[in-house]
Amino acid sequence: MTFAIKIFTLYPEIFPGPLQYSLVGRALQEKKWSLETVNIRDFAFDRHKTVDDTACGGGPGMVMRADVIDRALKFHYPVFSKSLIYLSPRGIPLTQEYVKKLAQRPSVGLLCGRFEGVDQRVLDAWEFEEVSIGDFILTGGELPAMALIDACVRVLPGVIGSAESLEEESFSQGLLEYPQYTRPRVWEGREVPDILLQGHHEQIRRWRQAQAEEITRVRRPDLWKKYCDTRDKEKG
Amino acid sequence: MTFAIKIFTLYPEIFPGPLQYSLVGRALQEKKWSLETVNIRDFAFDRHKTVDDTACGGGPGMVMRADVIDRALKFHYPVFSKSLIYLSPRGIPLTQEYVKKLAQRPSVGLLCGRFEGVDQRVLDAWEFEEVSIGDFILTGGELPAMALIDACVRVLPGVIGSAESLEEESFSQGLLEYPQYTRPRVWEGREVPDILLQGHHEQIRRWRQAQAEEITRVRRPDLWKKYCDTRDKEKG
Repeated sequence: MTFAIKIFTLYPEIFPGPLQYSLVGRALQEKKWSLETVNIRDFAFDRHKTVDDTACGGGPGMVMRADVIDRALKFHYPVFSKSLIYLSPRGIPLTQEYVKKLAQRPSVGLLCGRFEGVDQRVLDAWEFEEVSIGDFILTGGELPAMALIDACVRVLPGVIGSAESLEEESFSQGLLEYPQYTRPRVWEGREVPDILLQGHHEQIRRWRQAQAEEITRVRRPDLWKKYCDTRDKEKG
Repeated sequence: MTFAIKIFTLYPEIFPGPLQYSLVGRALQEKKWSLETVNIRDFAFDRHKTVDDTACGGGPGMVMRADVIDRALKFHYPVFSKSLIYLSPRGIPLTQEYVKKLAQRPSVGLLCGRFEGVDQRVLDAWEFEEVSIGDFILTGGELPAMALIDACVRVLPGVIGSAESLEEESFSQGLLEYPQYTRPRVWEGREVPDILLQGHHEQIRRWRQAQAEEITRVRRPDLWKKYCDTRDKEKG
């Protein structure tokens, strides 16, 4: 089955861009996912191809028009789609859990905003999910769309060689991942931790778990609290 | 002054990619920022150009070698750099506040990981800051690097036309932004909220503030709590 992505953007020429390389690019060639870009500007009503207008109530910047975006959506979804996502800093934060659910849908439509954003009415009318990749502001939704696609394609069956890789990584247990080391064993006076070289699998597992817990506690008190709460609940 | 970015990656051909369009692309042409890509593979020690090896202690996937990355860094930083960032889901979450600080540095070096990540020792030796764009896993650090650059360039002086735009947006007050509307006034039976059309600036300001508070409360209890705590403290 192909995971079908449709992107509504003012910059279709940006795609696939970074998504044509490496694992995700190979998966595109192998038709594990597909990409269709829609230029919102093609659906403007006037000969100047206007897609935006000033904000009602005043304020700086331009807002993308509901009617133009709606026309693009209607053309591409003659039947109402329940799987539309608007990338925006106002959205629900993207998580790995959400990524895994999203990757199970047959298709997803992504709307990339520019300027001050999109007229709220088209988001309401089409029941967009609003998703944010983080608490910072970008010039448009295209990079967040790419991040979301990369994350989803990565968890599609057969894209990553080893299924284990998906289990041990950050967030899979609610923790950040333990540190990694590889050869050489000593580099500029810095040694690989001894325990990783002695082949005691259970000891290695315990060391890694402790490292993962420690880094999460220090760097992400929010995740650490959630992890402890879940652990305590499981213990009863 | 030019905001100078150096990127260490296995996929230099991805850049500037999306960063050559729109506001950020124009700022690149205007030399408000500069971009240099470094192919880590060019610094491998063997004729097979090996950059990775298996993880010490076992586990799936490959780890990028400390010595190869170090060689690339030493070549490009004959003097130790204090401004190196490793993009990784294990990092400190990127925020708009951090973006604004980062954009004031004269230069930033970004290391993009692939595979299972990078040998911890090179991160320690070079005192990398580790930064995450969100709680999800990507195939590499290139898209996060682009997001970080886009966010930083956007706040450089003169990149966005109106300085006001930077003040009213999401996170500037610790809240998500209010909804936006533009013409037409009525679209498919949906009207722009009356209050935005009556020209009472103070009423509009209050309505927008209430909307911003409401959406933050509903979608982001974490930000809402922080906002309330700060507000209470300011009130004494």
